[in-house]
Amino acid sequence: MAERFDRFADLSAGLAELGCEALLVLARTAQDPDLAPFVGAVHLGECQLVAPREGAAHLAYFTPMERDEAAATGFALLTPEALDLTRWASEAPEPADFLARVTAKSLELMGIAPGRLALAGYGQAGVIVAACNRLMKDGWTFVPGNGLVLAVRKKKTAAELAAIRAASDATCAAFRAVAGLLAAAQTHNDQTLELEGEALKVARLRDEVAKVLSHHGCEQPKGNIIAPAEEGGVPHSTGTQDRALRAGESLIVDLYPRGTLWSDCTRTFCVGAPPERLRHAWTAVRDALETAHLRAAPGVRGWDLQEAICALFEDRGYATPISQPGATTGYVHNLGHGVGFDIHEQPIFKKVSGAEGVLREGDVFTLEPGLYDPTPVSSDSGYGVRLEDLVWLGPDGVESLTPLPYDLDPRSWS
Amino acid sequence: MAERFDRFADLSAGLAELGCEALLVLARTAQDPDLAPFVGAVHLGECQLVAPREGAAHLAYFTPMERDEAAATGFALLTPEALDLTRWASEAPEPADFLARVTAKSLELMGIAPGRLALAGYGQAGVIVAACNRLMKDGWTFVPGNGLVLAVRKKKTAAELAAIRAASDATCAAFRAVAGLLAAAQTHNDQTLELEGEALKVARLRDEVAKVLSHHGCEQPKGNIIAPAEEGGVPHSTGTQDRALRAGESLIVDLYPRGTLWSDCTRTFCVGAPPERLRHAWTAVRDALETAHLRAAPGVRGWDLQEAICALFEDRGYATPISQPGATTGYVHNLGHGVGFDIHEQPIFKKVSGAEGVLREGDVFTLEPGLYDPTPVSSDSGYGVRLEDLVWLGPDGVESLTPLPYDLDPRSWS
Repeated sequence: MAERFDRFADLSAGLAELGCEALLVLARTAQDPDLAPFVGAVHLGECQLVAPREGAAHLAYFTPMERDEAAATGFALLTPEALDLTRWASEAPEPADFLARVTAKSLELMGIAPGRLALAGYGQAGVIVAACNRLMKDGWTFVPGNGLVLAVRKKKTAAELAAIRAASDATCAAFRAVAGLLAAAQTHNDQTLELEGEALKVARLRDEVAKVLSHHGCEQPKGNIIAPAEEGGVPHSTGTQDRALRAGESLIVDLYPRGTLWSDCTRTFCVGAPPERLRHAWTAVRDALETAHLRAAPGVRGWDLQEAICALFEDRGYATPISQPGATTGYVHNLGHGVGFDIHEQPIFKKVSGAEGVLREGDVFTLEPGLYDPTPVSSDSGYGVRLEDLVWLGPDGVESLTPLPYDLDPRSWS
Repeated sequence: MAERFDRFADLSAGLAELGCEALLVLARTAQDPDLAPFVGAVHLGECQLVAPREGAAHLAYFTPMERDEAAATGFALLTPEALDLTRWASEAPEPADFLARVTAKSLELMGIAPGRLALAGYGQAGVIVAACNRLMKDGWTFVPGNGLVLAVRKKKTAAELAAIRAASDATCAAFRAVAGLLAAAQTHNDQTLELEGEALKVARLRDEVAKVLSHHGCEQPKGNIIAPAEEGGVPHSTGTQDRALRAGESLIVDLYPRGTLWSDCTRTFCVGAPPERLRHAWTAVRDALETAHLRAAPGVRGWDLQEAICALFEDRGYATPISQPGATTGYVHNLGHGVGFDIHEQPIFKKVSGAEGVLREGDVFTLEPGLYDPTPVSSDSGYGVRLEDLVWLGPDGVESLTPLPYDLDPRSWS
């Protein structure tokens, strides 16, 4: 609980900077990435957090049945009864009107007089805009607060790190299961892979991943990427279920499941001897990842790392977003992104950035160099190579939360 | 494509009623439940739909790499280049400001002069409110449009029904796999179930469900419910992974996966002889579901069905929300909800409702009577029984999209 109060201190300073009385988080569930950093892992439906600049934050919940879950957060509560929900449901059944009445009641119960609020959370655009317009008529004004919450949730508490670690352990187990299936596959003369008498396809690996992740209590709300050869050559492509896998081609596996919080990791496999250009690209990517691991430290900008990785790739003869903006072969994306309450959060690795672009102790983020070429040549049908670790930044540098082998050959994984 | 234009005709009529020039949908992905009914199943990140009351809707997309996906929608497109995104990213990097500039540009490119817009889609509350406030200074006004989209997406097209059918087929396959595991389990003297030498636990069933659904291309973004006995006695509870299953107790399995669109189905199992009160409750629930199937027809109100089911349950000696509001045993929830682009949409089954509470041809919704009692008695530790079918309403009545057995005994499923 102590660490949560640090986050409230950061929030309070941020509210002062924005000239706001309080933060208002409108959430459809407690999994809202702007709410979870304050309330932790609880099962709640629609709710609101009101965190005044000074004084205790209160949690308003809307369903009487959720009283135990709400109490487990440790917050002072605004109950459905205190919020007069039954009255508003009958007097103001229209969703925007209902939301405006309930929010006004929350603020009134906390003794917050009409003034300037920072607004965060996720929801129905039209309903929220109309509700806020109604509240503006009573003297409230709103400034965007999503960015403030992104900033205060950047550094993870020990409990949050443990949750990300748990999701990452599940992710590693899924990778080892995939490597095991690939290692057990037999290679036919035409290079196709066979497992248990059937052609080994993307779908078989995806089933295994789903089973292992589920067993570890994780879900994949945004799916995953299991993309062979020419499909992996386009970072946008997620991989076709029916695609039969072959020896001598690349296979990008990128898993980003959610337990209580999210994880994210990528490895690239090749059963049998890799073509020369794949081997060359893999070596460059592994070196780039090693460089990124070594240079990530508190105070370093994400963009500095991106520049270093681009320099490395350019030395090896690959196009990068710096040398050839808009190129679709070579290194075509950013080096990483924060991970935690959402799959993409702070820190960011962009050129134009303030504090959100600086790596700090306690941050959790990916490092994910990759090289791509979807163009077929005689010996192969295109390739993609990406190696991605999820790391936690300590005082002296990064610790990998996804300590898996980097080898292309799944047989060297066991 | 023809059927999509019917939806645009409904939209146009709705916009006229609201006195709006156009519908503006702000979406973070094309899976946004307010965007997918118009653009179909495509992979797009942040985008906007502008649908004028008269004339062709346009889709604005933000990432050049997504040009092929955007083109596949068949819409007139507002490209990142036409929208001047590079300029706004540099001149207005703050998210709300960026969104306001891009939206103004979308509307300008379509020749829509400042006026009244219906606003829908889902997103960051603070960013959207601030962006709309900026647009209001230029003469735009906004009314909530989420409800309008809910109304026009209520009736499903043939392609949408096919997508729900595919997700429902996957759901049925997962249920048959669960029934197979339960049927194969051995019962020990202490009533615990064992499978392949291990105690059969909730986690084992959940792994199997994840694997089967994944194999059919479905995800479970909101998890599932696999809740035995006392856990199933509280509809709120999702079921504990480590809970060992026993003969002679209820097991509620409620699966609500998403393929392209969502599905939703519940069955209740009991290995071995059910206790008398479970048998009694199951018979009442099965009769209630049969009644609901028979009475659902175009023009019938969801609330009429809810009343009929409450009357049936009261006849059998159970409390209902009508006879005992707030009771936690007996029938404690609503009869159903629409399913499609989201897991809960229209039609609704509430007392206070307009057109959204009336069943119409082409609607897809659940029928899910249930009875609950988490209080232990000597012979068992509480029970829950729910039977839920997902149905499509045709001109003469409903067709079940989840044609599975209702039997408690998994051995009678094969």
